[in-house]
Order: sequence, then C-alpha cells, then structure tokens
Amino acid sequence: MSIKKLPVIDLTTPVACCSPLVREPLDEAGATELAATFKALADPVRLRLLSLIASHAGGEACVCDLTGPFDVSQPTISHHLKVLKQVGLIDSERRGTWVYYWVLPAALERLSALLNTAEARA
Amino acid sequence: MSIKKLPVIDLTTPVACCSPLVREPLDEAGATELAATFKALADPVRLRLLSLIASHAGGEACVCDLTGPFDVSQPTISHHLKVLKQVGLIDSERRGTWVYYWVLPAALERLSALLNTAEARA
Repeated sequence: MSIKKLPVIDLTTPVACCSPLVREPLDEAGATELAATFKALADPVRLRLLSLIASHAGGEACVCDLTGPFDVSQPTISHHLKVLKQVGLIDSERRGTWVYYWVLPAALERLSALLNTAEARA
Repeated sequence: MSIKKLPVIDLTTPVACCSPLVREPLDEAGATELAATFKALADPVRLRLLSLIASHAGGEACVCDLTGPFDVSQPTISHHLKVLKQVGLIDSERRGTWVYYWVLPAALERLSALLNTAEARA
C-alpha cells in the first residue's frame, strides 16, 4: 500500500472506535483502517515529529520548530507531516508565514484504548 | 526496512518504556524501536491475528484456530505470526502437533501507555 493510497480517516464515525482488540476480534474493515494508522506511525521520523508536536509548549508547533532536530530536508518533513495528517493524527493551519501543527488527542486516545489490555480484563 | 531486519525487542529493558509521547519528545533510538513495533502492526492480517489470539478463550490460540478466518495460505499466516513474535507482541510454544500463541500483555500495555494523552495531561 503506497502512502498516497492511505485512506483519510473520518474520526466522527470511527470503524473500530473503542473496543480493545484483546476483547473481541477485529473485523476486516476495522483492521484495514487501523493498519493504515499504524503504517503512518511505523516511521521513526514521523513518530518523533508526532511526539515533538504533542509535547510542544502550548500544544502546537510551528513547522519552523520541526525541521531543526532532523537530518532530513524540509520537503521530507512536509511529506511526513502530510502522512500524519492524512490518517487524522494531527491537524494544521497556516498563520501568516508559517504552518502550525497540533495533535488530535481523540485519535491517539482511540489507539491507546484499542491496545489497552487492562480495560479488557476489567 | 525489510521485515527480516526488524529488531528483536528486549522487553526487560524497553527503550521508550512508559513515558507518553505527548509528554516528552521521543529520542532517535526510542523512535526507531517503536517504529519497528508499529510496522508489525501496520498490516490488516497481522492486526486480526493479534486480536484473534488476544481475544481467544483461555488467552491463547492454537495455530489451527488462526487459519480459518483468513483468505491467505498457512505459510503466510506463519510469516505474519513470526513478525508479531519478533517484535515481542506475542509468544508461542509447540505442544504435540500444534503451536500455541498468546499475547504478551506488557508489550500492548506499553504501546497503550505511550499513546495515552490523558495520563500526560494529569
């Protein structure tokens, strides 16, 4: 599956919302959609970008804050940010010269809940 | 990164154990190791296998229970199970004719904690 084919996730109607995958078997559609999200996370630079944005003071980061820590070009950073945005993990807005990025907490919470084993045992 | 090059994760000394990635930026080593785990999860069949094993009665599943639901060959299923095992998400044991698989809850919990945003805000 190429990056270009990653589905855009509609977080208002999540396919596999909140039931931990240890509680009941994932269905095919839910697994396909989840796999696309994990594919977006399966890259060290994207994980670091996500973490940098999420842990940034004020909860959002200017793209100008996101290139320094990496040994890759600005277009590569922009590509990685686009992938994270396509799967609904981050959002962005242009303000003047710069684009600002923030994490969508509901998307991370959903993944966290899906991988939660304690809740499933409760 | 090919599947063959996926690092084996030593869960006794996790690189990025428990600090949510929204609390502090992931370092390069932690991100590389985490990305390998997410790469293992970035496949619909592997996600469904993981979910089938985890939700199976008794907490473990015979490989004979894992081929029916999929439209792929037994060697393909075995390959996917090997990938999940390589990153420390499941373990297995041969008993007589069959191999049995179970999920390693600490590995899932670790991922769940890493993606947890509520804990980071607390």
